[in-house]
Amino acid sequence: MPKQLLKKRPKKKLGVAPGTLVHVGEPSQERITINLIDYDSEQFHEELLAIDDVQRCCQLKASPSISWININGVHEIGHIEALGNCFNLHPLVLEDILNTDHRPKVEDYEDYLFLVLKMLFYDREGGIHTEQVSLVLGPNYVLSFQEKTGDVFDGVRDRLRIAKGRIRKQGADYLAYALMDAIVDGYFSILEQIGDEIEEMEQELVTDPSPQTLNRIHNFKREMILLRKAVWPLRELISALQRGESRLIAETTAIYLRDVYDHTIQVVDTVETFRDLIAGMLDLYLSSISNRMNEVMKVLTIIATIFIPLTFFAGIYGMNFEYMPELKWRWGYFGLWGVMLAISAGMLIFFRRKRWI
Amino acid sequence: MPKQLLKKRPKKKLGVAPGTLVHVGEPSQERITINLIDYDSEQFHEELLAIDDVQRCCQLKASPSISWININGVHEIGHIEALGNCFNLHPLVLEDILNTDHRPKVEDYEDYLFLVLKMLFYDREGGIHTEQVSLVLGPNYVLSFQEKTGDVFDGVRDRLRIAKGRIRKQGADYLAYALMDAIVDGYFSILEQIGDEIEEMEQELVTDPSPQTLNRIHNFKREMILLRKAVWPLRELISALQRGESRLIAETTAIYLRDVYDHTIQVVDTVETFRDLIAGMLDLYLSSISNRMNEVMKVLTIIATIFIPLTFFAGIYGMNFEYMPELKWRWGYFGLWGVMLAISAGMLIFFRRKRWI
Amino acid sequence: MPKQLLKKRPKKKLGVAPGTLVHVGEPSQERITINLIDYDSEQFHEELLAIDDVQRCCQLKASPSISWININGVHEIGHIEALGNCFNLHPLVLEDILNTDHRPKVEDYEDYLFLVLKMLFYDREGGIHTEQVSLVLGPNYVLSFQEKTGDVFDGVRDRLRIAKGRIRKQGADYLAYALMDAIVDGYFSILEQIGDEIEEMEQELVTDPSPQTLNRIHNFKREMILLRKAVWPLRELISALQRGESRLIAETTAIYLRDVYDHTIQVVDTVETFRDLIAGMLDLYLSSISNRMNEVMKVLTIIATIFIPLTFFAGIYGMNFEYMPELKWRWGYFGLWGVMLAISAGMLIFFRRKRWI
Amino acid sequence: MPKQLLKKRPKKKLGVAPGTLVHVGEPSQERITINLIDYDSEQFHEELLAIDDVQRCCQLKASPSISWININGVHEIGHIEALGNCFNLHPLVLEDILNTDHRPKVEDYEDYLFLVLKMLFYDREGGIHTEQVSLVLGPNYVLSFQEKTGDVFDGVRDRLRIAKGRIRKQGADYLAYALMDAIVDGYFSILEQIGDEIEEMEQELVTDPSPQTLNRIHNFKREMILLRKAVWPLRELISALQRGESRLIAETTAIYLRDVYDHTIQVVDTVETFRDLIAGMLDLYLSSISNRMNEVMKVLTIIATIFIPLTFFAGIYGMNFEYMPELKWRWGYFGLWGVMLAISAGMLIFFRRKRWI
Amino acid sequence: MPKQLLKKRPKKKLGVAPGTLVHVGEPSQERITINLIDYDSEQFHEELLAIDDVQRCCQLKASPSISWININGVHEIGHIEALGNCFNLHPLVLEDILNTDHRPKVEDYEDYLFLVLKMLFYDREGGIHTEQVSLVLGPNYVLSFQEKTGDVFDGVRDRLRIAKGRIRKQGADYLAYALMDAIVDGYFSILEQIGDEIEEMEQELVTDPSPQTLNRIHNFKREMILLRKAVWPLRELISALQRGESRLIAETTAIYLRDVYDHTIQVVDTVETFRDLIAGMLDLYLSSISNRMNEVMKVLTIIATIFIPLTFFAGIYGMNFEYMPELKWRWGYFGLWGVMLAISAGMLIFFRRKRWI
Repeated sequence: MPKQLLKKRPKKKLGVAPGTLVHVGEPSQERITINLIDYDSEQFHEELLAIDDVQRCCQLKASPSISWININGVHEIGHIEALGNCFNLHPLVLEDILNTDHRPKVEDYEDYLFLVLKMLFYDREGGIHTEQVSLVLGPNYVLSFQEKTGDVFDGVRDRLRIAKGRIRKQGADYLAYALMDAIVDGYFSILEQIGDEIEEMEQELVTDPSPQTLNRIHNFKREMILLRKAVWPLRELISALQRGESRLIAETTAIYLRDVYDHTIQVVDTVETFRDLIAGMLDLYLSSISNRMNEVMKVLTIIATIFIPLTFFAGIYGMNFEYMPELKWRWGYFGLWGVMLAISAGMLIFFRRKRWI
Repeated sequence: MPKQLLKKRPKKKLGVAPGTLVHVGEPSQERITINLIDYDSEQFHEELLAIDDVQRCCQLKASPSISWININGVHEIGHIEALGNCFNLHPLVLEDILNTDHRPKVEDYEDYLFLVLKMLFYDREGGIHTEQVSLVLGPNYVLSFQEKTGDVFDGVRDRLRIAKGRIRKQGADYLAYALMDAIVDGYFSILEQIGDEIEEMEQELVTDPSPQTLNRIHNFKREMILLRKAVWPLRELISALQRGESRLIAETTAIYLRDVYDHTIQVVDTVETFRDLIAGMLDLYLSSISNRMNEVMKVLTIIATIFIPLTFFAGIYGMNFEYMPELKWRWGYFGLWGVMLAISAGMLIFFRRKRWI
Repeated sequence: MPKQLLKKRPKKKLGVAPGTLVHVGEPSQERITINLIDYDSEQFHEELLAIDDVQRCCQLKASPSISWININGVHEIGHIEALGNCFNLHPLVLEDILNTDHRPKVEDYEDYLFLVLKMLFYDREGGIHTEQVSLVLGPNYVLSFQEKTGDVFDGVRDRLRIAKGRIRKQGADYLAYALMDAIVDGYFSILEQIGDEIEEMEQELVTDPSPQTLNRIHNFKREMILLRKAVWPLRELISALQRGESRLIAETTAIYLRDVYDHTIQVVDTVETFRDLIAGMLDLYLSSISNRMNEVMKVLTIIATIFIPLTFFAGIYGMNFEYMPELKWRWGYFGLWGVMLAISAGMLIFFRRKRWI
Repeated sequence: MPKQLLKKRPKKKLGVAPGTLVHVGEPSQERITINLIDYDSEQFHEELLAIDDVQRCCQLKASPSISWININGVHEIGHIEALGNCFNLHPLVLEDILNTDHRPKVEDYEDYLFLVLKMLFYDREGGIHTEQVSLVLGPNYVLSFQEKTGDVFDGVRDRLRIAKGRIRKQGADYLAYALMDAIVDGYFSILEQIGDEIEEMEQELVTDPSPQTLNRIHNFKREMILLRKAVWPLRELISALQRGESRLIAETTAIYLRDVYDHTIQVVDTVETFRDLIAGMLDLYLSSISNRMNEVMKVLTIIATIFIPLTFFAGIYGMNFEYMPELKWRWGYFGLWGVMLAISAGMLIFFRRKRWI
Repeated sequence: MPKQLLKKRPKKKLGVAPGTLVHVGEPSQERITINLIDYDSEQFHEELLAIDDVQRCCQLKASPSISWININGVHEIGHIEALGNCFNLHPLVLEDILNTDHRPKVEDYEDYLFLVLKMLFYDREGGIHTEQVSLVLGPNYVLSFQEKTGDVFDGVRDRLRIAKGRIRKQGADYLAYALMDAIVDGYFSILEQIGDEIEEMEQELVTDPSPQTLNRIHNFKREMILLRKAVWPLRELISALQRGESRLIAETTAIYLRDVYDHTIQVVDTVETFRDLIAGMLDLYLSSISNRMNEVMKVLTIIATIFIPLTFFAGIYGMNFEYMPELKWRWGYFGLWGVMLAISAGMLIFFRRKRWI
């Protein structure tokens, strides 16, 4: 998971001209595929293309129906550039699509809006895994670029396929909204899983804290840092969209964006709450360690404080001085036992008073 | 109580189309009931309906008198939708009413205002329990949706029943204000209870801190996180209402909203003060543990430091060497006692100087 | 002092209609008295009335001279209401006057300004004690409501009595300013006392820290929380007044309010500085405890580490094996002493190297 | 230095009418002197007056040349008042000049600007010492009031004396700028000294931390609190001036004020950086104490854990039971040594595994 | 590295007139050189001048082609002043160029923009090293002042040399952008290196924490303070530029500045993330020390608590009383062993219950 956090730094991009296309991210052998969906309220068409068929996509730009061109992979620069050219994308937009380390943002290029978002996946061992999704929203098309095949958009696809519901009747802006909504919904499912694990860990903290618990707390703390980094800028982003300054977003869609905005704030709130909870758990862990140390010390002190003086007395009468009158006394031995028991009892009363036992 | 905190995550809502009605929250077997109150300054009418009589409510929309339709339960989706339809509620509003995990917010839909609020209940064992109240304020009606029967609105109902006081002469906006006021007043009573418990716990901290105290402090900390999450957005919400941008809120009512706003700030302030107090108590607890450990260590050190050297001397003269001149000395034994007492006295003076005893 | 902090919660107010007059605060047996001062640059009249003479005050509303009506006590609701009625006070204003748990605020009701302020008193045992002062500033009168007799306004009264100085020539707004100034000046005297105590405590911390010191630090921390709560809203309040939006405040008076504003900021600054100092003292206390523990541990370790091995050797030669050649050696005993001294010396050198002694 | 911090509270000012002139600060026996400098680009005149010659200053108000009247001391109220009267200063301005506990601020009185600044001095033993400088900037004069003789303005005086450079050709606003610049430059020299001491202390922290180090860190922390209190408001102050809202500040001077503003931000930044560094040092100190304690504990544990079992065995064979077969064994004694060495070796291997040695 | 941090304070500048040129920074023996590049879309000319040829540069001001004059070193005041004069730079600009301790800023002097930036270098031993770069952007020229030879601009030079790409076709503002972009790109490479080291250190923290780890964490913390100080103001700076208020920045270039702005935010984000990570590591280190101490204490307590009572019993039967019946018992010795084993077993069970072993 550290890898994940530090991946955020572009590795291959330094020292080249701005606008030069370089793929930043994990290299992939997989060939890029394109999911092509073209629809209006009447008809629906779906196709899976290889990246070489990029020209097929370009033709759709002119058609009045809504086209959703979903590109699975951004590591084959030439083809991405070709696609960019036929949709007139600015070189900096192409550069940002290829650089998968961007923070979420929205940019208005008059003819189209460019959005960078983060899709999150979570598994218990590997922690949070992010994948960048770049959206280009034009008047009648949406381009979506993912790092690899596999996404959270299946619900959207299903709603497009079955010809009912609002989505088929609305424009490209509604489609873009639906994609954003799916991504933010994905955050909720991750928060749910993390929430379950936090609850589990809290249980563990109360019943049986161990150094492993500390490590888990620390890991959660790091995941929260990562999550926050992905979610915070989203808030601004959607707020900017919803203010409706772009002519590409219809007013009816803006109401739905307000809804996504609410969800984003809820995610941010929950992340902050989790951070607070985790901080509280760390405090609790540390104080429980202090408590334990205290208890250990008390046991040691009680045992040592009782027996050290007694051992001293035993030592005294183990000495070999020729003249030690007590050794001759008839009840010396039993008297000493009496003294020792008295000392022990006194100590115990003292400890009881101090509330140590 | 952790449950409570983490319940905030919608469980069943992921991956469905926005505007699809799904109930999010604890499922309930209870049948939904409707409290119907219809009044103006002259007349007053109160009725308890089953949810099936939803049409009865719809008729009231047209009547000039003020209607308060209070729905106890949101888990029967079909009926809620029917009600929503006859009041022309936007699908997203209905979705938010069913999803009981929303954060407090206000939304202006021109024809009506939509408000989400949190009613809080508190009991000593279970901690804070939240229940979502959604208000829809129209020109002459207020719809209020609760998660289940039982609320903090009885005072409002009483004032409506006895035909005196301001409330019967004012419009629906004043009724909405009265409901908000009742909810915020409920926060005060919770703060009062928590305040009493904090005082109690402080007493405990001074007289007899234990690991249980730590757990209670930790629990309070969590409750404060929850409380804060419910109260903070309220501040913005009421501030937005009071600024009077909606034509549904009369200017005379705005003055009363300013009053609720003051109360909300007072609640927020008190929550923050409690957080500060609890943080201070944690510090105090940790330092009192340090202090105790210190005291334990001192006792151990004093006992060990005095007796270890003495035991060593006793050991020396317990040796069986054939040639040990001191053993033959007439006053060897008593001399040794003298030396030992001198050493002990020296140690005690040393400890006194160090202010350990 | 906890009481003081938590008193902030209204106890008797829950569940009643807004604007209903209920006294919130400590009940009092004392009868309410009214200090009536009526003056202009020419004449001065002072009277002490019983609360029953409330009509006497009402007459003054019409007279062109400036009237200062100071009410000592707000627990007799009927009379307060009577007074409110003849000065046309809004029900919410009367409610706020009776509820002595309000936070400082200013409200503009066109005909008059309503201000809530906190008068602070301090004594070493009881900590900070707050008393609410509500001011109503009309065109030619000032009403001031206190919780009980005894205030910080004697300086103002003296300046009114002796017919010189600015105050007799100015309007009611200047009088209100003078009262606010007196209240803020009172804060300075409290800060001075607390500052002295902090200095004292710091001395104590350096010379002889004890668990009692910790308790005092903790108490100071709480007082600062309370003080801050009283002072922070004041800042906004005076800033709002000084911006001169009310026609009741003359421009010449606004300059004086700027001065009070400066003082308020100075108070806030000092409170923050005290908080920082107290936080620093807590750190210092905790590290001095750590230091002491460290020292205790070192003494224990040095003594134990030197004597435990020596005692072991003494134990060895105290054994009763039949065949132990060393016991027969002529110089065995003295040789052992030599070995022991060498071990001790080695240990001491080791400790010296570690800088433990 | 605590004195210094807490001096901020005015002692003699409580309960008097606003605008009453009372000197707040350390009383002084020294007589007030006045440095009078009168110049334009052609001529330069310098004079040292006693405070009684205050009328001499008043004449300069009318002359077209620039006059800088620097008053060393504010404890002789009558003369200050006389000066104030002939320059038409508002009573509150005079009050603020006499009260040397003000926070930095600027106030625009149309005819003149009133500025309060803090001159800082530093010496290693006494810590930071502040002196208030009040500036009154009129169209052709600058009044500067200091608490006592001795300031940071000698550079400005030298530049005025030698008839070259910008200063003689510019107006009174440039002179005021030059004085502010000199004061802010003085902050840099203090930061430099403190920076050197921090570096020194860091060295000490690494090589030989002691409780004295802790005290020094704590002292630095307090000085930073003081410094910050003096510098923060300055930022606002100069920013307000530079925005050029006053007609007394020429646009050409505003560029220079932008420069002072930059310096002020740099000072603020450095103070914050120092605070961060000092906080880091405290952490480092505390962890190094923890580390040491850990090391002490390890030594104790290693010694005790090895020798306590061995001593037990020695004790066993020191017992006087009549029937103890081992005592008769030929190799009993040497065998026991073997067992003991084996135990010690086992322990050492165990400790090595635990990485304690 | 402390040096580095504290170098921020100008040493030689105090007490001189503003606008006086004094070099602040490390003195250098190296002679200043000038890189002169003059180009338009058609032609390209590059020259390396000695500082004495400053007049050569001045001629370029008039020519329509774009000139980039890069000065390596600012310690020869006279020549810098000469250059400043022929480009009409304000005295305060020259002062800021010479003072290499400035914080990043932008200032608009109508005819030219003045920018101060920080170039960062990093090596593992010496930590972060900053070098100030001052840029002056005129209509057709860019002046860049560095502290010494060696920079991050080689990529820009290469793109200028090979006559393709956007840069040769654009104006001076694009060149300035390219330089800023190169500087910010340099930050990424440093973040990457630091990120790698943090990962390394985390590994170390888990496998084998030592006091050296603590020192490294502390060093990282300091580097982050330094880095943040360099990067934060940059954000504002580029934001100000990009808002396009200066007529020197073409709108087409503003889009590219938006891109640099994104990068800057990414750098700031990463620095903040690193700070969070480092803070987390400190916590982890401290708790792992606590854990270890706890473990050490447990071992000590277990050993001591088992053997101290046993040794006491051995001591008892080592006493030399004449009348001790047990010593005569046939099975006394073996019985005692039995008792001892029972005690040990009891202890071990107790420890197991406490989960200490």
